[in-house]
Amino acid sequence: MKGSLLYAQSGGVTAVINASAAGVISEARLQPERIERVLAARNGILGVLRETLVDTAALSGADLARLRTTPGGAFGSCRFDLDPAENNPLQYDRLFDVLAAHDIRFFLYNGGNGSMETCRQVQSAADARGYPLTVVGVPKTVDNDIVGTDCSPGFGSAAKYLATSVREVGLDLAAMTTNAGRAFVLEVMGRNAGWLAAACALAAEDADAAPHIILMPEVVFDEARFLARVQAVVERVGACAVVVAEGIRGPDGQILAMQDRNQKGYVQLGGAGEVVAERIHACLGYKVHYALADYLQRSARHIASRTDTAQAFAVGKAAVRRAVAGQCGVVGIERLTDDAYRWRTNLLPFEQVANLERSLPAEFIAADGFGVTEAFRRWCRPLIAGEDWPVFKDGLPDYLRLQLPLLQPLLPSHSP
Amino acid sequence: MKGSLLYAQSGGVTAVINASAAGVISEARLQPERIERVLAARNGILGVLRETLVDTAALSGADLARLRTTPGGAFGSCRFDLDPAENNPLQYDRLFDVLAAHDIRFFLYNGGNGSMETCRQVQSAADARGYPLTVVGVPKTVDNDIVGTDCSPGFGSAAKYLATSVREVGLDLAAMTTNAGRAFVLEVMGRNAGWLAAACALAAEDADAAPHIILMPEVVFDEARFLARVQAVVERVGACAVVVAEGIRGPDGQILAMQDRNQKGYVQLGGAGEVVAERIHACLGYKVHYALADYLQRSARHIASRTDTAQAFAVGKAAVRRAVAGQCGVVGIERLTDDAYRWRTNLLPFEQVANLERSLPAEFIAADGFGVTEAFRRWCRPLIAGEDWPVFKDGLPDYLRLQLPLLQPLLPSHSP
Repeated sequence: MKGSLLYAQSGGVTAVINASAAGVISEARLQPERIERVLAARNGILGVLRETLVDTAALSGADLARLRTTPGGAFGSCRFDLDPAENNPLQYDRLFDVLAAHDIRFFLYNGGNGSMETCRQVQSAADARGYPLTVVGVPKTVDNDIVGTDCSPGFGSAAKYLATSVREVGLDLAAMTTNAGRAFVLEVMGRNAGWLAAACALAAEDADAAPHIILMPEVVFDEARFLARVQAVVERVGACAVVVAEGIRGPDGQILAMQDRNQKGYVQLGGAGEVVAERIHACLGYKVHYALADYLQRSARHIASRTDTAQAFAVGKAAVRRAVAGQCGVVGIERLTDDAYRWRTNLLPFEQVANLERSLPAEFIAADGFGVTEAFRRWCRPLIAGEDWPVFKDGLPDYLRLQLPLLQPLLPSHSP
Repeated sequence: MKGSLLYAQSGGVTAVINASAAGVISEARLQPERIERVLAARNGILGVLRETLVDTAALSGADLARLRTTPGGAFGSCRFDLDPAENNPLQYDRLFDVLAAHDIRFFLYNGGNGSMETCRQVQSAADARGYPLTVVGVPKTVDNDIVGTDCSPGFGSAAKYLATSVREVGLDLAAMTTNAGRAFVLEVMGRNAGWLAAACALAAEDADAAPHIILMPEVVFDEARFLARVQAVVERVGACAVVVAEGIRGPDGQILAMQDRNQKGYVQLGGAGEVVAERIHACLGYKVHYALADYLQRSARHIASRTDTAQAFAVGKAAVRRAVAGQCGVVGIERLTDDAYRWRTNLLPFEQVANLERSLPAEFIAADGFGVTEAFRRWCRPLIAGEDWPVFKDGLPDYLRLQLPLLQPLLPSHSP
């Protein structure tokens, strides 16, 4: 079977998702006997439905090298789920009309848990219709919550950025003394899984270094126990640095948020970090600063992990090789050894991955619920190892701003 | 005159204040015929009053190299102002008892506007008492609000970190489309001066790139005009990235803050960034994210500007040379040429610097108040130029955690 390959990006983007795109395009160019054209959809599956496609042939080798080091989603991303095929056959008719019009025989979708469900749906619909298509999922998430793979591209770089920031802030915090006591709170991503919060533990070189407390969604937030711990840390080392995952929940199962504002009809913006900072100040009287990394943590390509960029590139290449071999599924990363870290890509069945979510296992969470275990550190350390600086120009990273022209549509326009 | 030199750090620390410390210590070691010992006080002028001093002789050349690339204040900082000499002669008696006990003839104080007033006070009291002392101020601030110098060490690195982050976030923001429109708000430091907010303008390579709007304390915040501009940007490019200095004020002269929470007796934590984000969402209905860089921006040594680290080191060295020459004052940085950026250190009289504050001049602010001029870009660009990566170990910057033993006190203990 010979035909074209279609690549698309989905969900929250990362510092290294474009490295996966570069891996896909590079590898596909090595397979001219199997792959006609390497197309990409704008804004994920939405771009497939809309038939907003670009041809990546216009990218030079230099462009690809720059794409590999550029954060964000160069082809555009989306948050859009296909309907179940039985509920909306017309949606799938359109989808396969577009794929057929462009002779697409390989579809590579770069995303997280939800996107892997899209992969499963498209492969399953293709099989049911007898449309010859191989779908391969390319994993991506800063949250590291994809099931089945040892880690997900995007996580290592966000983890490296956050652990670096916590180490730096810890030195800042330690420099100033006050009689009142001081605390610093950093809110990081992680609605249901505490992987990024946990990774900040790597910043600490000993028990007195930041972060002193890590709050993860896997552990119920107990305010009294937490405040007692903050106080104990401040009494011991003079200041306390706290890392909070955005999704921590109290005993009532509710996510921490500035409740009073919600009740007054205000939009809820202040989240867990702000609540925790406010509680420390109100109950302990400490001077408190807090920071909210938000998008900065998932786009900080300037301090990407070399392991992470290598894995992101590798899963892109592996996906192409699986696709031309007719093997559908989700590319995963398998850890071979820990100490001298070795890994390889593998392939997971869609059903093992799609729509599932992977939390921190109990053996990675410290017994007191305020930190991580040595097993977690051993697991996490290689994922942030190595630097992979982008090229700088005039003091700033020289990122690619991709502007490929849309292909002439072959079908009537369609609004999903 | 031969004697010892005392160095101390004051105020909010920066990514490069320790580079100034390294400059001071390196240069002082070159002057053994004039400088007996190079001491440092713990926590600034407080450490002088408390007689908590350390001897930097224990630092090896390798330690000094690492100190140069370590953020935070390695000797500890403070926020403490001396009383006017006429109001509290006992405070000055104690101060000069400590200086005399350790044969201090040179006092170098590394800080911002307030610390330069401390320098002035100490020099003036020494002169009045006939105590032979030369005081030199070493400038430091991320806010760039020190009068008389073209720029201040600390600013360039914070500016580089923020502009890099805005460029990265801009790519993230551009990747996702929604029908509702999207906005991102980043709150940066700057209570009275918009230098750091303005520096984010360097992130944009053209008018459609982030940041689209910059709000500076020098411009009164006009909510209706601002929202109209956000809407226009979203209609043109699909999303709007806003940089907000923490100190912007409305027409009533009040700093923007979540007022309702204050009225309910809650601590005010959410500041200008949160208010602006909330207004965009409430009035325009856009999906809004916001980030609060807080301490991260002033401690981000991992992406320090090479210009900035060179200047921080140079002002430290220059301060020692001025001190041994008996020239008191504040070391400044003088710009010689713009295009091929050249600079040198100079010396400013205390009175020209102490307690003053430098805002963005009108010629640096765009006519519409939402951005900067080409003159500002030309001024700012060289200050973020060049990289000066710290050494990494196990994936993280390998910073120095200085732990020098306190010198045996020669005087009775004292609590300032």
